[in-house]
Amino acid sequence: MRRHSLQHDSEGRLHHLLTIEGLKRQQIVDILDTAESFISVGDRQVRKVPLLRGKTVVNLFFEASTRTLTTFELAAKRLSADVLKININTSATVKGESLLDMLHNLEAMQCDMFVVRHADSGAAHLIARHVAPHVSVINAGDGSHAHPTQALLDMFTIRRWKGEFAPLTVAIVGDIKHSRVARSLIHALTTLGVSALRVVAPKTLIPAAVESLGVHVVHDLDAGLRGADVVIMLRLQKERMQGAMLPSEAEYFSTYGLTEEKLALAKPDAIVMHPGPINRGVEIASSVADGAQSVILEQVSNGIAVRMAVMSMTLGRAPAEGEGA
Amino acid sequence: MRRHSLQHDSEGRLHHLLTIEGLKRQQIVDILDTAESFISVGDRQVRKVPLLRGKTVVNLFFEASTRTLTTFELAAKRLSADVLKININTSATVKGESLLDMLHNLEAMQCDMFVVRHADSGAAHLIARHVAPHVSVINAGDGSHAHPTQALLDMFTIRRWKGEFAPLTVAIVGDIKHSRVARSLIHALTTLGVSALRVVAPKTLIPAAVESLGVHVVHDLDAGLRGADVVIMLRLQKERMQGAMLPSEAEYFSTYGLTEEKLALAKPDAIVMHPGPINRGVEIASSVADGAQSVILEQVSNGIAVRMAVMSMTLGRAPAEGEGA
Amino acid sequence: MRRHSLQHDSEGRLHHLLTIEGLKRQQIVDILDTAESFISVGDRQVRKVPLLRGKTVVNLFFEASTRTLTTFELAAKRLSADVLKININTSATVKGESLLDMLHNLEAMQCDMFVVRHADSGAAHLIARHVAPHVSVINAGDGSHAHPTQALLDMFTIRRWKGEFAPLTVAIVGDIKHSRVARSLIHALTTLGVSALRVVAPKTLIPAAVESLGVHVVHDLDAGLRGADVVIMLRLQKERMQGAMLPSEAEYFSTYGLTEEKLALAKPDAIVMHPGPINRGVEIASSVADGAQSVILEQVSNGIAVRMAVMSMTLGRAPAEGEGA
Repeated sequence: MRRHSLQHDSEGRLHHLLTIEGLKRQQIVDILDTAESFISVGDRQVRKVPLLRGKTVVNLFFEASTRTLTTFELAAKRLSADVLKININTSATVKGESLLDMLHNLEAMQCDMFVVRHADSGAAHLIARHVAPHVSVINAGDGSHAHPTQALLDMFTIRRWKGEFAPLTVAIVGDIKHSRVARSLIHALTTLGVSALRVVAPKTLIPAAVESLGVHVVHDLDAGLRGADVVIMLRLQKERMQGAMLPSEAEYFSTYGLTEEKLALAKPDAIVMHPGPINRGVEIASSVADGAQSVILEQVSNGIAVRMAVMSMTLGRAPAEGEGA
Repeated sequence: MRRHSLQHDSEGRLHHLLTIEGLKRQQIVDILDTAESFISVGDRQVRKVPLLRGKTVVNLFFEASTRTLTTFELAAKRLSADVLKININTSATVKGESLLDMLHNLEAMQCDMFVVRHADSGAAHLIARHVAPHVSVINAGDGSHAHPTQALLDMFTIRRWKGEFAPLTVAIVGDIKHSRVARSLIHALTTLGVSALRVVAPKTLIPAAVESLGVHVVHDLDAGLRGADVVIMLRLQKERMQGAMLPSEAEYFSTYGLTEEKLALAKPDAIVMHPGPINRGVEIASSVADGAQSVILEQVSNGIAVRMAVMSMTLGRAPAEGEGA
Repeated sequence: MRRHSLQHDSEGRLHHLLTIEGLKRQQIVDILDTAESFISVGDRQVRKVPLLRGKTVVNLFFEASTRTLTTFELAAKRLSADVLKININTSATVKGESLLDMLHNLEAMQCDMFVVRHADSGAAHLIARHVAPHVSVINAGDGSHAHPTQALLDMFTIRRWKGEFAPLTVAIVGDIKHSRVARSLIHALTTLGVSALRVVAPKTLIPAAVESLGVHVVHDLDAGLRGADVVIMLRLQKERMQGAMLPSEAEYFSTYGLTEEKLALAKPDAIVMHPGPINRGVEIASSVADGAQSVILEQVSNGIAVRMAVMSMTLGRAPAEGEGA
């Protein structure tokens, strides 16, 4: 309960973006519509808008990242915000300052937004519970829990290609169990009302009780792909898995890797997505990743527009009654 | 002599800010007044002013720092300057280039200001003696010598709470001996004419002949706090001390740690300050650091306004006769 | 063949800057003239022009660098571009993402320019062959192959001091064999038509068949310097050389080091140049590096104007027929 309401202000507007859980359908649609406004004619983005001029966005990345960090930095700069990248390793935590003291210091410096990536599930929620009322927190990935902006940019990409969500059959293939992307995707897709949502993986990579979220569990890749409109491949999170859980990469690829042959089982106009970075020859063949049905690089482009939308919507709110400034 | 005049131009205006020593009372007041202009109604800063547009500020931090580095970066950005953060470890010094060659190269790139933090006392002075006439140097902390912007932001904070300096009793508590903050504070407070200035510490943490600076040395915390208007706690610089100088942290806390009980000895409206980062339970109890009399986070906020003031005053000078451009 | 045309678009305009080879004389002169426009009265640069506002420049430095990285960053900022510095070590390559996947991701983020430094010869060419049509690539140094912006800023510096190239005698002294700067300089100086170009080094530091490029090989420093208008000293790339190739640094200095005594053999108004960082007492005496004939720091200043010129010329092109946007 607390988790779901934490990200809204007293008038129900988005204050933080921590997780897809608890977002209403209309709220997701509003974000996608706002993102659309940041894409101009011919798929080129309006590069510089003054919406967040004078605001300060802080990237707090406790986990290595290039793609996500860079897109958040670019999104903030294209909104004309000042961007701080805190180098966590050489930071004051070395001197024994606690995380919360660091956050309170950044707040005192009139920072307006914390974009947080952390290896621990719940880190962004923890931070959101402790920040000053004028600060917004964006979860850029916490452990195996959530990665809401990734899910939103995926929804944006699907909508651009497919229009309506209701008639779609979507297959999410790969390491569902350790993937924060999968968790956020499932919540987004069910909220938007896709007619069939399949998660496709070996038993060891399926989390317990995942059916309760409204998905069909499929262990056979062929069955999972058959008739799908959208195929979302997940990165094999090698570093998160125990040694004995999986056979070799080659064996995984032969069973769950997406090849052109396998993709032919999906609808002819199916799109192939991947949150990146891709492991070529592990979960996806290069010919598919670079092929005509792949929208993987469009996802990256769309990520900037979606992050601009989320940043401008959370920071652009007029403060609700009872909130400090 | 040289040291005191090095930071002024031939017309007596501030060219570098290296140390509080040698600043006249009026010059300190001018800085505080300028900083005040950067704080707008409701304690929110004017976030973006074009005063240093087109100027380039270089942060040269040879010592790890988050808070000070970040506030200088934010101050420069809010003045619309371009900011360079030179990564000292991966810099050309690795290739055998000397520090002065690096500085002259940065000057040749039309950099306008060096903000310097270094573990060696006198580093900022050394640099100031060698830079081109158009470059200003700000000392962001050199060894155990000086940290003038910290002292100025503390003066700013005291003035906002207490108005006049003359009637005040101020207690500086902790590791006076190894603290560049303490040294700068003592010069600032005596120049501004506080009626009583006490330094409170065990004998091993009091520098030789400190009384000659106009302070009262007190070894008993109760006596040091009694009747104080302002209590400034210093960070216990563990890494700077010899092994045998101090007992355990717990014993230090029981003797010199600021608890609610101890604070009750000061005036009822006394304010508690700390330059950060704080060691909770070592020099200060969490209940005091987070308590109603603490202005620690205000110091951080004020630090940005004060650094904006120093940067704009030193870089905004019209060049004096005989100075190159 | 391919290499020479890769950097031009179908209308012969500069699209990438990869190497001096293949640039026509007029094209080099155009770059120098454009750079001149970025230098204002009194040798101060126009600090901020809006030419690349809304463009994103990515610095991809796979090799440590301070000077070159910093001047490219400053040049981009003074053109009002947004600048990304990708930390290659902590980047997605760690997660197994290939270089080309990283580039395609950056393209998808609407990045407009890659400034590339890499230890492998040909790296910038490889990248230029694979980028999207709207992206420009600038070679900021690849292995021992080329460093074209360094050569251009050197031409700019020579032209400012000497006017015409045709009558000049130029001596390049030092480690010709391992120097990308030397290779680019030779192409630039012969294209601009200097009357005499000498390379001066021991046999072990002269590349095979260098005479075919139109230079005179001289092994004796005195003979090499005699009557020269321009003396360009190269950094002794210690790290690139095999152990047995050279005697001690002291012996090298006594044979090939530029001292005041040696410099007296050149014309009285000869200028001394060095791409930096200099090894004082190895290839050049401090008294010469800091002396009246040295223009080493001017080279650094000019580097910003020249890089601004190259960036604005390659990115400012209207797309040629058949190029995507």
